[in-house]
Amino acid sequence: MNGRVREILSWYDSENPGIRTNLARMHNHGRLGGTGKMVILPVDQGFEHGPTRSFAPNPAGYDPRYHFQLAIEAGCNAYAAPLGFLEAGVADYCGDIPLILKCNNHDVLNDERDPISAITSGVSDALRLGCVAVGFTIYPGSAQRTTMYEELREITEEAKSVGLAVVVWSYPRGSSLSKEGETAVDVVAYAAQIAAQLGADIIKVKLPSEKVELPEAQKVYQKYEIPIATLADRVRHVVQSAFAGRRIVIFSGGVSAPDDQFYNEARAIRDGGGFGSIIGRNSFQRKKPEALKFLSTVMGIYEGSVQ
Amino acid sequence: MNGRVREILSWYDSENPGIRTNLARMHNHGRLGGTGKMVILPVDQGFEHGPTRSFAPNPAGYDPRYHFQLAIEAGCNAYAAPLGFLEAGVADYCGDIPLILKCNNHDVLNDERDPISAITSGVSDALRLGCVAVGFTIYPGSAQRTTMYEELREITEEAKSVGLAVVVWSYPRGSSLSKEGETAVDVVAYAAQIAAQLGADIIKVKLPSEKVELPEAQKVYQKYEIPIATLADRVRHVVQSAFAGRRIVIFSGGVSAPDDQFYNEARAIRDGGGFGSIIGRNSFQRKKPEALKFLSTVMGIYEGSVQ
Amino acid sequence: MNGRVREILSWYDSENPGIRTNLARMHNHGRLGGTGKMVILPVDQGFEHGPTRSFAPNPAGYDPRYHFQLAIEAGCNAYAAPLGFLEAGVADYCGDIPLILKCNNHDVLNDERDPISAITSGVSDALRLGCVAVGFTIYPGSAQRTTMYEELREITEEAKSVGLAVVVWSYPRGSSLSKEGETAVDVVAYAAQIAAQLGADIIKVKLPSEKVELPEAQKVYQKYEIPIATLADRVRHVVQSAFAGRRIVIFSGGVSAPDDQFYNEARAIRDGGGFGSIIGRNSFQRKKPEALKFLSTVMGIYEGSVQ
Amino acid sequence: MNGRVREILSWYDSENPGIRTNLARMHNHGRLGGTGKMVILPVDQGFEHGPTRSFAPNPAGYDPRYHFQLAIEAGCNAYAAPLGFLEAGVADYCGDIPLILKCNNHDVLNDERDPISAITSGVSDALRLGCVAVGFTIYPGSAQRTTMYEELREITEEAKSVGLAVVVWSYPRGSSLSKEGETAVDVVAYAAQIAAQLGADIIKVKLPSEKVELPEAQKVYQKYEIPIATLADRVRHVVQSAFAGRRIVIFSGGVSAPDDQFYNEARAIRDGGGFGSIIGRNSFQRKKPEALKFLSTVMGIYEGSVQ
Amino acid sequence: MNGRVREILSWYDSENPGIRTNLARMHNHGRLGGTGKMVILPVDQGFEHGPTRSFAPNPAGYDPRYHFQLAIEAGCNAYAAPLGFLEAGVADYCGDIPLILKCNNHDVLNDERDPISAITSGVSDALRLGCVAVGFTIYPGSAQRTTMYEELREITEEAKSVGLAVVVWSYPRGSSLSKEGETAVDVVAYAAQIAAQLGADIIKVKLPSEKVELPEAQKVYQKYEIPIATLADRVRHVVQSAFAGRRIVIFSGGVSAPDDQFYNEARAIRDGGGFGSIIGRNSFQRKKPEALKFLSTVMGIYEGSVQ
Repeated sequence: MNGRVREILSWYDSENPGIRTNLARMHNHGRLGGTGKMVILPVDQGFEHGPTRSFAPNPAGYDPRYHFQLAIEAGCNAYAAPLGFLEAGVADYCGDIPLILKCNNHDVLNDERDPISAITSGVSDALRLGCVAVGFTIYPGSAQRTTMYEELREITEEAKSVGLAVVVWSYPRGSSLSKEGETAVDVVAYAAQIAAQLGADIIKVKLPSEKVELPEAQKVYQKYEIPIATLADRVRHVVQSAFAGRRIVIFSGGVSAPDDQFYNEARAIRDGGGFGSIIGRNSFQRKKPEALKFLSTVMGIYEGSVQ
Repeated sequence: MNGRVREILSWYDSENPGIRTNLARMHNHGRLGGTGKMVILPVDQGFEHGPTRSFAPNPAGYDPRYHFQLAIEAGCNAYAAPLGFLEAGVADYCGDIPLILKCNNHDVLNDERDPISAITSGVSDALRLGCVAVGFTIYPGSAQRTTMYEELREITEEAKSVGLAVVVWSYPRGSSLSKEGETAVDVVAYAAQIAAQLGADIIKVKLPSEKVELPEAQKVYQKYEIPIATLADRVRHVVQSAFAGRRIVIFSGGVSAPDDQFYNEARAIRDGGGFGSIIGRNSFQRKKPEALKFLSTVMGIYEGSVQ
Repeated sequence: MNGRVREILSWYDSENPGIRTNLARMHNHGRLGGTGKMVILPVDQGFEHGPTRSFAPNPAGYDPRYHFQLAIEAGCNAYAAPLGFLEAGVADYCGDIPLILKCNNHDVLNDERDPISAITSGVSDALRLGCVAVGFTIYPGSAQRTTMYEELREITEEAKSVGLAVVVWSYPRGSSLSKEGETAVDVVAYAAQIAAQLGADIIKVKLPSEKVELPEAQKVYQKYEIPIATLADRVRHVVQSAFAGRRIVIFSGGVSAPDDQFYNEARAIRDGGGFGSIIGRNSFQRKKPEALKFLSTVMGIYEGSVQ
Repeated sequence: MNGRVREILSWYDSENPGIRTNLARMHNHGRLGGTGKMVILPVDQGFEHGPTRSFAPNPAGYDPRYHFQLAIEAGCNAYAAPLGFLEAGVADYCGDIPLILKCNNHDVLNDERDPISAITSGVSDALRLGCVAVGFTIYPGSAQRTTMYEELREITEEAKSVGLAVVVWSYPRGSSLSKEGETAVDVVAYAAQIAAQLGADIIKVKLPSEKVELPEAQKVYQKYEIPIATLADRVRHVVQSAFAGRRIVIFSGGVSAPDDQFYNEARAIRDGGGFGSIIGRNSFQRKKPEALKFLSTVMGIYEGSVQ
Repeated sequence: MNGRVREILSWYDSENPGIRTNLARMHNHGRLGGTGKMVILPVDQGFEHGPTRSFAPNPAGYDPRYHFQLAIEAGCNAYAAPLGFLEAGVADYCGDIPLILKCNNHDVLNDERDPISAITSGVSDALRLGCVAVGFTIYPGSAQRTTMYEELREITEEAKSVGLAVVVWSYPRGSSLSKEGETAVDVVAYAAQIAAQLGADIIKVKLPSEKVELPEAQKVYQKYEIPIATLADRVRHVVQSAFAGRRIVIFSGGVSAPDDQFYNEARAIRDGGGFGSIIGRNSFQRKKPEALKFLSTVMGIYEGSVQ
């Protein structure tokens, strides 16, 4: 075991060896294997946004096998998807890439102000499909968050007892947050903390903006002069908020952005001590050769081979 | 095993052999056996719309045995019905036709804007009745969809573990959709995707109209010039939205229509790469000789013996 | 449903429709489909006698796929085998032939005088593999028979609750029977009765000899002048012993015999009202073309096309 | 996935993807990764023969971490051990090598003629320790074999349901076999067949001698002139007996032997189509540098880099 | 946490923190707290040998509270007893000393050659009584050992899942061992290994004699010149046999002995790297003041304050 991977695993030494083994499988796999950095391909947009919005830009993506191939060829650390996408592709790629089963999902055919995802699969599915982890989305800020936290608690207890790692998508949303507040730095830091307190092994949050949403928080950020001017500062703050960096925090880019902006974001994640990126639409919504080049640049930034 | 059936089954190679066997039983049965196409007779209208609306046009249909006879004589691939209809007829027709137990149902005695079906039977019923599959309706778009998706997830997990296939009726409905939006092409494609992601083995949707309902989707359909002008185009798009055609998608005709229109729809399903039809009212609401002739023409279209 | 199949199923009208469906699947399948007669291919000799004794005469039989192919090409009603043989071949033949999972097995590496088979698979395996029935061997006459009857009772209860049929191999053996007594007509008739009383849907026994083993029975056979002179007489007596012919009784040929003798035995089974044959070694221990010819003749005898 | 690994996995296409993933993890790991060949380090001798007999020749082996290190440095495909040895070492090597939990064990403090192993751990242990498979020993030939087969059946059903592979040590022993008969070619072939019929994914047997033990088998070996003159012939026969080579069969060297003899045995396994070796005492009962050199030569023979 | 205790706990880093906490509670308690050495008071002789043989020498011991008091006043690390003794005394001493519930027991009213203990309490008792560990006796060498190992496996799985440590009394006995063989050095080393492989956290064995019992072992002890001349040598060998000292091994004095001999044994345990003593009869079969003086001397030897 590589020294950096060993160090990361040491933070999880109250977990059973099965969980640590599955964390190691992700950390040791692909081009970033052994660096302690991760790039994960998630493809749940077919469910979350609909198939056409997701796959029309690159119709190869309608086929569930495409995303396995993309993640494997790019050398990603893991591939995350809902039940159907994994079931319809896994048999051709058994053992070729660590898999994360996204166990709850939300569609936009009835988009509530206080959303909750439906539980669409579970631990027994993850085991029979050979996954290393379950993934679960919570919406801190939603009036329905209590239900989601409790659902996460149940799936976490079951998953950890059988050695599966738990990856939490922690996405603030809901009637009491402004649209901008969803990515405000205080809210993102809070979302990371909540996921960590719920027992997440890996935490996925959005990149934080400079905005501070909550009035009580604003006072504190000012009083203690928390550095949040640069994106790297904010990444550092979010990582600190996830147990002083002792839980793996990765960042999503969200909506499509120009590549240069995306690369700068990756540099900020790297410089701020983030553990990597989870990149969906920016990966699979372009032709595969371009996607491979794009992901190669991102991985190069994490690796240090690209400045 | 016929080559086309073998190809279709290969898409399900992460499922256990029991599921694949039951899919084969449907694909190998009846006049379309071996073609990869399916015509299924569903009779749940007694529950869904009331007996008189359903059976007065052809009173023979009040008798549960009638529909078994019709499906068998017509050479359908399978017959689908709720618990009572199967229980009251199956003993006379054991082994004569693959059966699908429709496990949830909704009536119109209190028709909510955000409907949910009641679970009316389950996996143990399907096994004791000798069924090859369970059927389940979801209403994407309903404010109650989360509950339905989670109910489906539970019945799917149980059904697949005992080798039963899962057939999902994915019918968008609910307060946030316009009436026309229920069959809008983007909404139908989305409904097919959701069913596939939930693990459906066979997906039943309505034939899509040319309308695009969701504003975010409209931009995409325009930008990428998705062909949706003809019904065959739209069928092709929906089939693509169900994992690039790697899940079986069949179409319902919905309300009664003139036969010629229905035949044209079947031609469009065939030309668009759909896997067949599920035909209720157009079949059982006419005298049996006419129904057999009607179904024979439809099957002829799928077979290629009728242009 | 064919009239004769309908008549046979009527004897099972206290069983649930799932069981009747699976009985119908066997009765409707293959060349003898609809005749009420059955020829089943069983291949458990690899476990029961060792692989070389079983497969050296026709080495193609080492491959689990071979027996599926043979049973399908010959038009058998069903194929029966232990867990491993089914698991290793089923995926290529899903839905092509009804399968019977042989749930207990015995080897001859420590051959006791009072044998018992080990339970090697069960109902959940049968369901996930898509089987129509479970098979189970009992050794009436063994000092361990009570354990076997109770094991059979448990598996029968479970199998029937999920609609699987139960096939019982009823083979008298044990320290209190002479070697010849194992096939004595009174003992075979008794074995058929025991299986029927235990709830077997299909009963497999060996062809009975003219010997009457048990002293108490000898008196009765003499007093009532039970006709047992010809094999057809004895078959008739065994079938009568299985509930006056209201349970399906099939006969095994046992050790290899000249084909003419085998054909005469089939004629006797037919003439005595037996329901068919279960033919292992005589089928798979010769080259496939010869095996197909052999099985075709046997089926012809049952069908009436061969005298 | 490598072509040969893909081919091997295709034999297991009735298993769920979790099992196939764990088989792939073993086949893709270490120096022989991708070749379809395997060298596994098993260390259960501390329990089976006592610590001093096992570890005095190389006292580093008293430490459970030693064997992890040896297996990792040598590039073995997997490491197999009982509960205590895995628990006491795994935390330092999470994810570094596929692990097989040996779930039953036998000691020689009361060595019966008809032995049975005690169940010492199970599926939940394997999951929490991050294993890819469970291992289980059966003694065909023991009067207690029925109990062992049934214990194996239960652990197999549980393990496969959660995606763990099943490795069976099939070692004929017992009162009805002569000492030489335990490795007689007919008995070893029979032992491989039994394990395969019981659902084993990987089968471990001893190298067979030229002796044929069972009288009924002797006739068959002679009549069909089964080639068993060379060790490669016998390996080929045993592999054929495990479903015509469609189950992975690996061979143990058994007692310590001169290295040259061992290398010749590896050549015979390779030439006879065996899938590799499971090498305990010959590996860990010498100093690590020598052990690494020894294992390197063995792997070279399988790889083709050593003649 | 003390450095030595931290080091010891590091050997258990695949166990959950609850188990490590309970090991720490014992290691941090009493006069030897923090030294890594342990003296435990066990009182199961009332059950094992009868009350009069056990308590007549010091009638205060008939009272269950006496032993709590003795263990507390002496500064033992833990007190171990069967259900009744703990239930009848614990309420007065809650939290005063770590408790080990001895979960199986054997009496001498029917002393078999191949003994097995009865399970007399379990994990739920240990939890409701506030214990830190369960204790369990196995008799390697008994014809009934398989049953005992499997019972231990079950209680271990349950105990560890709720954070209780597992203490195993591993006492070779049975028809295939000579009386002297029960404490032969090879047999004691083997017994320690078996307990460790079964997952014991703390192992209790008897002090080994110079005898080597098993013929196969004798060859090895001679060939490798294993040092077993002194008691310290033999202790060192047994500790090495328990995973190179990475499992806690403590020794019992067995029958009553003169104090000087006992002190010399403690010195040998200390010098040989043993982790301490478990002292029953020598403690409680004398008046408390003498017992306290005696235990103080033993602890002084472990501490280093007594030579």
